[in-house]
Amino acid sequence: MGAGAWGTALAKVLADAGNDVTLWSRRAELAEEINHTHRNTRYIGDVALPASIRATGDAETALDGACTVLLAVPSQTLRGNLQPWRAAIGHDATLVSVAKGIELDSLMRMSQVIVQVTGADPARVAVVTGPNLATEILDEQPAATVVACTDSGRAVTLQRAFSTRYFRPYTNSDVVGAEIGGACKNVIALACGMAAGVGLGENTSAAIITRGLAEIMRLGIALGAKSSTLAGLAGVGDLVATCTSPRSRNRAFGERLGRGGTMESALREAAGHVAEGVASCQSVLALAESYDVEMPLTDAVHRVCHRGLSVHDAVALLLGRTTKPE
Amino acid sequence: MGAGAWGTALAKVLADAGNDVTLWSRRAELAEEINHTHRNTRYIGDVALPASIRATGDAETALDGACTVLLAVPSQTLRGNLQPWRAAIGHDATLVSVAKGIELDSLMRMSQVIVQVTGADPARVAVVTGPNLATEILDEQPAATVVACTDSGRAVTLQRAFSTRYFRPYTNSDVVGAEIGGACKNVIALACGMAAGVGLGENTSAAIITRGLAEIMRLGIALGAKSSTLAGLAGVGDLVATCTSPRSRNRAFGERLGRGGTMESALREAAGHVAEGVASCQSVLALAESYDVEMPLTDAVHRVCHRGLSVHDAVALLLGRTTKPE
Repeated sequence: MGAGAWGTALAKVLADAGNDVTLWSRRAELAEEINHTHRNTRYIGDVALPASIRATGDAETALDGACTVLLAVPSQTLRGNLQPWRAAIGHDATLVSVAKGIELDSLMRMSQVIVQVTGADPARVAVVTGPNLATEILDEQPAATVVACTDSGRAVTLQRAFSTRYFRPYTNSDVVGAEIGGACKNVIALACGMAAGVGLGENTSAAIITRGLAEIMRLGIALGAKSSTLAGLAGVGDLVATCTSPRSRNRAFGERLGRGGTMESALREAAGHVAEGVASCQSVLALAESYDVEMPLTDAVHRVCHRGLSVHDAVALLLGRTTKPE
Repeated sequence: MGAGAWGTALAKVLADAGNDVTLWSRRAELAEEINHTHRNTRYIGDVALPASIRATGDAETALDGACTVLLAVPSQTLRGNLQPWRAAIGHDATLVSVAKGIELDSLMRMSQVIVQVTGADPARVAVVTGPNLATEILDEQPAATVVACTDSGRAVTLQRAFSTRYFRPYTNSDVVGAEIGGACKNVIALACGMAAGVGLGENTSAAIITRGLAEIMRLGIALGAKSSTLAGLAGVGDLVATCTSPRSRNRAFGERLGRGGTMESALREAAGHVAEGVASCQSVLALAESYDVEMPLTDAVHRVCHRGLSVHDAVALLLGRTTKPE
């Protein structure tokens, strides 16, 4: 459900693994293009999709009889999208969340939004997450990912459904950990970008990634996640890929701010591609505050994006704690 | 003790922090250059050193009256260097290890070599380690590091001694964890380089870093390290910096192999700068075997460097385990 770059890339993985795939797109003309040319030029350029993928602009058609429903709409729109789909989702279907974020007002994780809107048993909800740039997956470059579900039977079924020569899923029962890693990493990538933008080097970047991981772990553990999940693909792996990739939208946005841009000019330069970290620093910070968890990097990024703090002062905050134990 | 790039960079940090520093160099002419021009052109180019650093080619002169002895010779030469210095080291001096590695025949960590050769109480031995590229430290770019010592009084004294505007040490009591992170990271950087050299992308690199961290943690925990140390600057931080930096010698060496070079041609191209990971994969793997710890990435790198395995087959090993829980 959702034919953006990530939804389309995962539709390709599932089709390559031999599953029967129907891809829903909000735009009927995009579904037409996929059905007739096996292309989704708006989101994935000239990559050829498996001919077996059928696309539709009608959600009920897509959901009818589906044993697995993969939700690939943006995190802040998930609730609104799900509501009209409720009745069409099968009673035992597995609901897979691949959007990364914390809902702004409710401060809910995506799996919690799914449970609340659909009334599904939490054991029916799974999360697929990891260091997975869509462009590389579409190019069939090897990648590893996490399939998290409290129901180990569903986790193993999904693992098989997603397994291809180039895409390797690992099962995990820790849904909370899988979601927290993905929701927080973009904020840390913004911080890394800001430091790089003001001219700081790789020692600084590594220190920010490490301190970022520490605050993500503090939040995750407060919410019941396992530290091993956050030391794995869904935590360290995704964080490293997002913070070090020159193709990371969040890192690039932070760099523009670091080179002296304002929020307005950085948004203009990004040509409408808003960096997710700009919104998620608000919900992550609010969630952390409600659990009394300190997240100093997230706080510094939030102050830059929403409180007018200069990047120069933020970078001092990123680095400038008093000497103390690690 | 040691005027290579890292020893010289740390001498500058200590002098900048207000300490009285004597720098020993094996080469008398290098000591002369430092004393007369405040330069060490062989190792650090044109960077100006603080005029307060005195250099000497005579180890006894350097050690005489020193309350802190910083050992910055290559790991495989530490034992041989230390033996003649024993008598000249003060009975209560703190011995600081900054070499990263496991001794080849004994499979000892550097702090163990120091204790064995000098007879010092282990509480007198400290380790300074973290994501610290020497060139960036010499350039006074902000960096964080770990000062590990079982004696918290010595750890705090060293933390103060190393604290400058640009260099921020964090204390830690876990000497084993601090040493294992540094000893293992270069092997994983070789693996990352090999994958990049054969054309694989950032998803693959992030998966290798994550799996590398997992095997480093397994070894560390078997040896008594804390997982929090390996999730911190000495583990994740140093690993990320070494695996993602284009300036990392080990990553670059792995890339040359990945692009089709032989060990011989890669060594020639490296112009005598041997990548540390080539030696340390042997000692790390032997240490892991003696503790019955599986390190599949280290094993694959070892097979390429010392058993004639092709990089193509090694990359398949790096990625190709059966589907299973994370």
